Amino acid sequence: MLLHDAPVSGNCYKVRLLASHLGIELERVETDVIDRSNPRESLNGLNPMRQVPVLVLDDGRVLAESGAILLYLAEGSGYIPDDPFHRAQVTQWLFFEQHELEPNLGVARFLLQFAQFEYPPRLLSSKQHAGREALVALEAHLTGRRFLVEEEYSIADIAVYAYVHMAQESGIELIDYPAVLEWVLLVAAQPGHIRISQ
Amino acid sequence: MLLHDAPVSGNCYKVRLLASHLGIELERVETDVIDRSNPRESLNGLNPMRQVPVLVLDDGRVLAESGAILLYLAEGSGYIPDDPFHRAQVTQWLFFEQHELEPNLGVARFLLQFAQFEYPPRLLSSKQHAGREALVALEAHLTGRRFLVEEEYSIADIAVYAYVHMAQESGIELIDYPAVLEWVLLVAAQPGHIRISQ
Repeated sequence: MLLHDAPVSGNCYKVRLLASHLGIELERVETDVIDRSNPRESLNGLNPMRQVPVLVLDDGRVLAESGAILLYLAEGSGYIPDDPFHRAQVTQWLFFEQHELEPNLGVARFLLQFAQFEYPPRLLSSKQHAGREALVALEAHLTGRRFLVEEEYSIADIAVYAYVHMAQESGIELIDYPAVLEWVLLVAAQPGHIRISQ
Repeated sequence: MLLHDAPVSGNCYKVRLLASHLGIELERVETDVIDRSNPRESLNGLNPMRQVPVLVLDDGRVLAESGAILLYLAEGSGYIPDDPFHRAQVTQWLFFEQHELEPNLGVARFLLQFAQFEYPPRLLSSKQHAGREALVALEAHLTGRRFLVEEEYSIADIAVYAYVHMAQESGIELIDYPAVLEWVLLVAAQPGHIRISQ
């Protein structure tokens, strides 16, 4: 399978992390996500939004959106529960991640680490504020739990881990969220774990 | 089943629309999503983010996030494909909707129709701009297609329809997106269709 990838993207990292757990070899084509003047023409026809990750299956079929790719690749593996309700709880966290975490932590990280343009300080602070609100919700859920769903490591943990474990790059200290911090260490200790830089 | 609902919320409407198609009777508990000073305490313990929709099953189990609820309720029905890849394409559109459409069209609509506070004009225009970019992507995909995935009406259409069909309330005219407009009419003509005000 071929992954249209960006090494620094948390969304792409999710796919690489699951593939590592599953023993799937991914051919990686690098896409520039830093240079916003780049219209990412290479993704034209693959993803309507021209965003990575985009997965191209061996038969040429194409899938975008990290959450959809995780659900597709995890099917039949131990990284997604069989029970329909537990599976629904996993998808709940995948949507939470794309709606509450990535648009806030991810954008704050982009502004602080990569932005090659001027931005209003208020944009950064509002993203950090909303990111912290999502971390408060995550902290409440993880308090007394090892993993997000049914005490089993799943694609819910993989998806949420991506931007949360890099919160410091978004200007947010995880020390304020002790249950989240403990869970971050537990995810990083799973067999087959790889770092975002790998 | 009991739905923690807000009549004006597009995210809640998705669940009501699918339930109508499936013939599921929903008991509805109304939540105020307009008054932002309201901490929505009634949702505490149900959804970490205290957002609607929240579905409470007859056995008391709780599910949040409209996309997760749609996937759960649609299982085994004609509103989600059986084929794993087509199902993945449906989930791709569910994530696209929550990441590109709802945070832009939905927020622009909230500011224009419901906001009880002052907001910077730039916030509205940036949300409308990003919403139009997502509509351009949607227009490109729907050109030459009847429905989003495999020419069959599915929960992908239901999810995307919710905020798109109300684009005018977000200050965006769908006449600029003719394939989207045709698809909106086709979705509204499906058996069992209900309006957001129903």
